[in-house]
Amino acid sequence: MGRLRGFASDNNSGVHAQVLEALANVNKGHAVGYGGDEVTARTIDKFRELFGTSTDVFFVYNGTGANVIAIQAFTSPYHSVICPQTAHINVDECGAPEKHSGCKLLPVQTVDGKLTVETIAAYMHGIGFEHHSQPKMVSITQTTELGTLYTIEEIKQIADYAHQNNMYLHMDGARISNAAAALGCAFKEMTVDAGVDVLSFGGTKNGLMYGEAVLFFNHNTDAVKYIRKQTAQLHSKMRYTAAQFEALLSNDLWRKSADHANKMAQKLASKLKDIPQIKITQKVQSNGVFAIVPHQIIEPLQKEFFFYMWDEHKSEVRWMCSFDTQEEDINDFVELIKEKVAQTCQRP
Amino acid sequence: MGRLRGFASDNNSGVHAQVLEALANVNKGHAVGYGGDEVTARTIDKFRELFGTSTDVFFVYNGTGANVIAIQAFTSPYHSVICPQTAHINVDECGAPEKHSGCKLLPVQTVDGKLTVETIAAYMHGIGFEHHSQPKMVSITQTTELGTLYTIEEIKQIADYAHQNNMYLHMDGARISNAAAALGCAFKEMTVDAGVDVLSFGGTKNGLMYGEAVLFFNHNTDAVKYIRKQTAQLHSKMRYTAAQFEALLSNDLWRKSADHANKMAQKLASKLKDIPQIKITQKVQSNGVFAIVPHQIIEPLQKEFFFYMWDEHKSEVRWMCSFDTQEEDINDFVELIKEKVAQTCQRP
Amino acid sequence: MGRLRGFASDNNSGVHAQVLEALANVNKGHAVGYGGDEVTARTIDKFRELFGTSTDVFFVYNGTGANVIAIQAFTSPYHSVICPQTAHINVDECGAPEKHSGCKLLPVQTVDGKLTVETIAAYMHGIGFEHHSQPKMVSITQTTELGTLYTIEEIKQIADYAHQNNMYLHMDGARISNAAAALGCAFKEMTVDAGVDVLSFGGTKNGLMYGEAVLFFNHNTDAVKYIRKQTAQLHSKMRYTAAQFEALLSNDLWRKSADHANKMAQKLASKLKDIPQIKITQKVQSNGVFAIVPHQIIEPLQKEFFFYMWDEHKSEVRWMCSFDTQEEDINDFVELIKEKVAQTCQRP
Amino acid sequence: MGRLRGFASDNNSGVHAQVLEALANVNKGHAVGYGGDEVTARTIDKFRELFGTSTDVFFVYNGTGANVIAIQAFTSPYHSVICPQTAHINVDECGAPEKHSGCKLLPVQTVDGKLTVETIAAYMHGIGFEHHSQPKMVSITQTTELGTLYTIEEIKQIADYAHQNNMYLHMDGARISNAAAALGCAFKEMTVDAGVDVLSFGGTKNGLMYGEAVLFFNHNTDAVKYIRKQTAQLHSKMRYTAAQFEALLSNDLWRKSADHANKMAQKLASKLKDIPQIKITQKVQSNGVFAIVPHQIIEPLQKEFFFYMWDEHKSEVRWMCSFDTQEEDINDFVELIKEKVAQTCQRP
Repeated sequence: MGRLRGFASDNNSGVHAQVLEALANVNKGHAVGYGGDEVTARTIDKFRELFGTSTDVFFVYNGTGANVIAIQAFTSPYHSVICPQTAHINVDECGAPEKHSGCKLLPVQTVDGKLTVETIAAYMHGIGFEHHSQPKMVSITQTTELGTLYTIEEIKQIADYAHQNNMYLHMDGARISNAAAALGCAFKEMTVDAGVDVLSFGGTKNGLMYGEAVLFFNHNTDAVKYIRKQTAQLHSKMRYTAAQFEALLSNDLWRKSADHANKMAQKLASKLKDIPQIKITQKVQSNGVFAIVPHQIIEPLQKEFFFYMWDEHKSEVRWMCSFDTQEEDINDFVELIKEKVAQTCQRP
Repeated sequence: MGRLRGFASDNNSGVHAQVLEALANVNKGHAVGYGGDEVTARTIDKFRELFGTSTDVFFVYNGTGANVIAIQAFTSPYHSVICPQTAHINVDECGAPEKHSGCKLLPVQTVDGKLTVETIAAYMHGIGFEHHSQPKMVSITQTTELGTLYTIEEIKQIADYAHQNNMYLHMDGARISNAAAALGCAFKEMTVDAGVDVLSFGGTKNGLMYGEAVLFFNHNTDAVKYIRKQTAQLHSKMRYTAAQFEALLSNDLWRKSADHANKMAQKLASKLKDIPQIKITQKVQSNGVFAIVPHQIIEPLQKEFFFYMWDEHKSEVRWMCSFDTQEEDINDFVELIKEKVAQTCQRP
Repeated sequence: MGRLRGFASDNNSGVHAQVLEALANVNKGHAVGYGGDEVTARTIDKFRELFGTSTDVFFVYNGTGANVIAIQAFTSPYHSVICPQTAHINVDECGAPEKHSGCKLLPVQTVDGKLTVETIAAYMHGIGFEHHSQPKMVSITQTTELGTLYTIEEIKQIADYAHQNNMYLHMDGARISNAAAALGCAFKEMTVDAGVDVLSFGGTKNGLMYGEAVLFFNHNTDAVKYIRKQTAQLHSKMRYTAAQFEALLSNDLWRKSADHANKMAQKLASKLKDIPQIKITQKVQSNGVFAIVPHQIIEPLQKEFFFYMWDEHKSEVRWMCSFDTQEEDINDFVELIKEKVAQTCQRP
Repeated sequence: MGRLRGFASDNNSGVHAQVLEALANVNKGHAVGYGGDEVTARTIDKFRELFGTSTDVFFVYNGTGANVIAIQAFTSPYHSVICPQTAHINVDECGAPEKHSGCKLLPVQTVDGKLTVETIAAYMHGIGFEHHSQPKMVSITQTTELGTLYTIEEIKQIADYAHQNNMYLHMDGARISNAAAALGCAFKEMTVDAGVDVLSFGGTKNGLMYGEAVLFFNHNTDAVKYIRKQTAQLHSKMRYTAAQFEALLSNDLWRKSADHANKMAQKLASKLKDIPQIKITQKVQSNGVFAIVPHQIIEPLQKEFFFYMWDEHKSEVRWMCSFDTQEEDINDFVELIKEKVAQTCQRP
């Protein structure tokens, strides 16, 4: 990677200064382990302020850990989980959901990474038929892995349908802050109020060093502490996980960081519109831009600004912005694209 | 907890100043995720300097994660793992080894937390008999969960026996630094040179914020990256895990910290010998002291210096020292014990 | 069910007289359990005559048991198995493959229940990428769940592709006898000679009381006996399983029974062609007929000849013939269909 | 095996003539698969007559299948199951319970294969402590793997203790008929009336070809049909499983067969008392005799009457009687033992 910052992923960025400061501040003396400390208690209260008092909070290490705990909490191995084909749980966790829960995933083809009541309904067959895995959970990602966004109303419709069919709604919120910032709403409106049962609340992609939280809304969670431990997701020195979230949830840091990342993506997309050889493939609704790019320029670009190929066959790439993406990064990157495109297109 | 520091666990202590500094230093710009960064490469090299060039290093979040990855790497579900009854994998991981690997654990009764060739051999029956789980791994903890220590020779004997019987030797090294400090040897002598196949190298209990490493010696580890990912133990912002280990392994910080903790335990034990009502139950060979204590004084002591009951029935407690335990902590604690003992024993 | 025999499934039929006789004959005195008896040895030899001497045979109770053993034998939990969306392992085993193996299934859309090199290749991405389940097995069903048939050449192409890509080829042969009968070939040509690595050899659907066999071709199967036992598929009184297969493999009983069932399906299909309201939806290549049928006649038909709806939305049904299906069953059934169609179509 | 019948196991014996006849009788026409047939319904009713109307019955293939379904029905992977060290689930199922359920087994040392409230209580620690597997089930075997017997009162005490501690009581009844015959009681008194929650009802060891049943008493069993299917224990041609049980439960065949086997064991034991070199090691309370035998005679004996070594170190063997053991088998066997003992003991 040539430049200090690239567009590979919001987890290639570092730790927000306020988060690092919080880690230093909490580093005093001993504290009871495994979440029995004051910082953890305080941070759970902060989550409850934002999500309501019936919220139960379980801090974990990473997103895969959060997702598999959420799934295990609400399923038995003979159940299935309906999710978009592009869901992180389906394609980016090396089969962790199946391994940890024993469940079958039912991957749904989508154009924009979003489920709808109609596409879910197509999988609701064989109910009560012992030969079939029984659908028990719907999992949506907000914002989606394709950078798109569910409206609150869309979430409500899915939640209602799930509940009518005796299923739970899981939201993979690895980028939940970007979603709330984009929708300009409170976390609560988009989750518990919309009918979400369990949320993987992402921290790492919005400026934490590590750490996610699994939030259960209005459910008995007596079993979850055992599931977390058995899933190897219980941190002993929990105060350090909690302190990061405390910083993130204080002074709207989560929103400021996410909002900035979203704006940078908008800026990038808007500048790309001037380049006819670049075709943006998904609505830019959060902090990612998906685009089909002339194949020859990809490698030269990556040498300076690292990013990932999304779909080799289509020459589609993914460019993610982060809390620390600078305007100059965007400007420099777009200039470089223009330059590379120009070089390429001159050739006969 | 009344005092700043207690004796509950070496994971109740904080992060070593040099480790925290390393975290701040690494917080610059973007870095490729999941271990593709320079700090990770550098730190793996550091491990190889200490353990030999045939060492493969996989960073993970915590000890349970390290242990279940080590087990999965060398077993199939029809195998069994022989370990002391007191092993962390047997009693403190909420069944994670069985869940993740599908294997049966064969817990061996011991007096000091240590296996021997003889006690292992008693479990070697039904080999080739399809009705029985087939022993495939021996797991020992160094230092043990009871604060005791294997000599290098004892490890060699167990390793030889394991290999002669087509088994692998796993070492749970949650406190591997305390062991090397206590034995005054290099890591290598006690592990790879003694025949250990896979080591859970502990960081958290020796001054890291989080982070352990699974070290494989002279084995094909092609599968391990998938196992780590599927076990939800792959950190995206890996540079922060690696940087902590880099600090720990630099300038002998690991040894200085561990040595200090060990010495504090020796001091505590030596002072306790003057109190006839306190009976030390295990050899004090590392940073822990196990003792039978008059039952009435336990709660009053815990109010000021937090620690855990080890065995309720025997009124046995565990006191752990840490890299940051101060001499005054020891002195104050022993004074308090004497005081409480005196109050109690005056009573008829 | 009004009539003595219906068209619901080839497992609704009974036990062939010769198989029942074999069971009675083997019922003398004691025999070593779990397969250590003479009948089992003799029957394994019979399989080796048919499939080659490098064939290892493991008798199990049922098809799901056979399939999950085959999968476990060749995979680790971080692997994936590519199969048609309609595969029994994908839709009719209540998630057993995922639960037992930990693997992800990759269900491929097909029109006729058959995979091709092209449709498999579309799933071969992310190889070596730790975030993705790694494809390790291709599973095809012969004859397919839609009654269609792979040619030997088609199987060879898939096997070659699988092996070139470091994968194993599993064949679910619940109806392998129907396939060999339909192709007029030996079992061997269609399986081991074509590159199949492991075969679930079906017995129950061709006149056994219970029992399937897992056949491995040219592979080290040391682990399989443990896998079978742990999967709860090891029968203690094994001679009774073996004796049934001995009968099935003797005097070409397997071929005669399967051939008859296939012929009955041909007859049924040929008679149905006269009824314009019935639309056959899949090639009739073995013992099943799939057809779209006027919705109103389904229930009345089922009252006399039991069968299953295949696809409610399309009003598609499945009619299976069996070793004991009689010509008069076909005639009576077709007459009844004509009658019901007539009644229905008269109505305005 | 030289003789027609040996003493290896009650599963080395054949199928009772009445059971074989029932299989022939049920072999007429087609029947709905997977338990939807009339024979299955009728046989479930028969079980309900014997165990009460709140009994739910699930037929399976074998004992391991029955046990792992019972465990899965009442546990989550973070639970543990307390059982005798000698339990079939602990030592003879190749780790199937751990693999299928994810649970930890807690094996309890016993002298006679029987748990007591006291020995169970020793494992009831760490309740509510997330680091420990949580005890959720007690599993006892009736008759035990050592041929001993729980009294009804002993079962009641264990059941009461289990329920008081929020656990379920499972009974592995592989030889439940021998137990009821030995106690001279109804099945009901010893199981549901004594507080058993779930019973693995054995058939194979009492004259069936294959087949066990899992019986749940007064519990919601909605999930069990999926668990059975996913565990690969659902027989398609269920009428053949059911018909065997129908025969077994009719005309007290179960009791007559078990009673006979028990009596043969009594006879064997009584005759062995005259041979001072044979030391019977367990109370002979059902159909098995455990004895320490001069090591030199074991192999010569096995050549004529096959049986298994129980404990190599102690030269302890197990002799099982069966429904078809004849008096002459006993007489011949004892004569042979006397002869071999005499030959051996003459030597200096």
